[in-house]
Amino acid sequence: MLALTPLENFPNILPGNDLAGNIIASLTNTNITLNNDDILVLAQKIISKAEGRQINLELVKPSQQAIEVGGLCEKDPRIIELVLQESTSVLRVRPGTIIVEHRLGFVCANAGIDHSNVTPENSANENFVLLLPENPGKSAYLLRTKLEAFFGVRIGIMIIDSHGRAWRLGVVGTSIGFTGLPGLVDMRGKPDLFGGKLRITQIAVADELAAAASLMMGQANEGKPVIHVRGFPYPLRNGKLEELIRPHEQDMFR
Amino acid sequence: MLALTPLENFPNILPGNDLAGNIIASLTNTNITLNNDDILVLAQKIISKAEGRQINLELVKPSQQAIEVGGLCEKDPRIIELVLQESTSVLRVRPGTIIVEHRLGFVCANAGIDHSNVTPENSANENFVLLLPENPGKSAYLLRTKLEAFFGVRIGIMIIDSHGRAWRLGVVGTSIGFTGLPGLVDMRGKPDLFGGKLRITQIAVADELAAAASLMMGQANEGKPVIHVRGFPYPLRNGKLEELIRPHEQDMFR
Repeated sequence: MLALTPLENFPNILPGNDLAGNIIASLTNTNITLNNDDILVLAQKIISKAEGRQINLELVKPSQQAIEVGGLCEKDPRIIELVLQESTSVLRVRPGTIIVEHRLGFVCANAGIDHSNVTPENSANENFVLLLPENPGKSAYLLRTKLEAFFGVRIGIMIIDSHGRAWRLGVVGTSIGFTGLPGLVDMRGKPDLFGGKLRITQIAVADELAAAASLMMGQANEGKPVIHVRGFPYPLRNGKLEELIRPHEQDMFR
Repeated sequence: MLALTPLENFPNILPGNDLAGNIIASLTNTNITLNNDDILVLAQKIISKAEGRQINLELVKPSQQAIEVGGLCEKDPRIIELVLQESTSVLRVRPGTIIVEHRLGFVCANAGIDHSNVTPENSANENFVLLLPENPGKSAYLLRTKLEAFFGVRIGIMIIDSHGRAWRLGVVGTSIGFTGLPGLVDMRGKPDLFGGKLRITQIAVADELAAAASLMMGQANEGKPVIHVRGFPYPLRNGKLEELIRPHEQDMFR
């Protein structure tokens, strides 16, 4: 059985907060002790907030390019300035939408920059936005070492965001960085049920888990940004987000 | 808690088999009684097999178009003939790959036609392939009415397949039809944690659940095509796959 449990009473995170301490307290509130091979899935937002990735738009000076692109997609040019700074290329610009390749390698809307659920101090005005963590894989790793030391176990940690899809509506939880678990599981060459060779191939298990955890986070005012996972059906290993990124030369839809 | 449990000892399905009966037996083997609001997620393969969607390639005559496209993507023109019959348009053809819009509305590789795990009788030669179910939403609905009558409960049923993504590697479990659950959950206009309006928006909860269930199915010789889900965090309703299909006029990547 795969069991996904949201941690209870997770506090609102402020810059500089000790996330590991908050998670340990919340695990205790939820009556969970971490076991070997457990995984924690975290919403990007709490990492970004703890790392102080809030940006006051009043301090952002949009470039000429940002003003032009902002006009095309009908968005605040200061936000577009940040989107461009966080991106390595722009795939599409349409009214209401900008799709980019984020500097972390994945393709997403708006470079993952978030304008909702910003800290209460800031929400009095609408001038704060939240960037993705500087290095989600590293953030996950640092958190993992603290939690593994505290509980004396071997775990995985993943950070997720909500991404749209090219041909389907609605967002789904998607991995933006992880440590201690596989990204892809390679089935190529394994026998199928009747001894034939399997044609497919590689399963994006980290993204499947990201979607599962996202289901339990909600997106509105529920505030369940940490999901405990027990029963992940593949052996843990030190995978990397890069496993999940399609190389440009294989990209048919750029 | 969201709990996903694979049904034990699910038999190999043959054309004409009584899937509802097999599921009831397997639930019993797994010591699960269906409750209200439970969901069963089924691999496409067992529906297709029960419905006799196996095709003997020796009986397929490829059209001139199929021969040409097969040459471009370096695939058996008889399989391409079936891909074209199952599709409404072709998005991309590259060596090793054909991406189409399936007649059911979604974009996928190879029109979902499967060449592995075909029934043992057929696997002696390599000449059988498996098409997607004729109408997965209807198949799910018919199965649901039987199981709801047997257990006296209100449940959801979803059929999934493994789909690739435009910019990420690896396949993820994706819904191809369902009954009795929501496809999208609309968060637009709901207050965020601090009373601001949420910008995102619609969550593809059926696809998040499809990915979660896929994680527990495996893809090789494990044979766990039915996953029982308890604790789905959204109210059940009669959603439709069409909710999840991006309309052509919003498609930026065709």
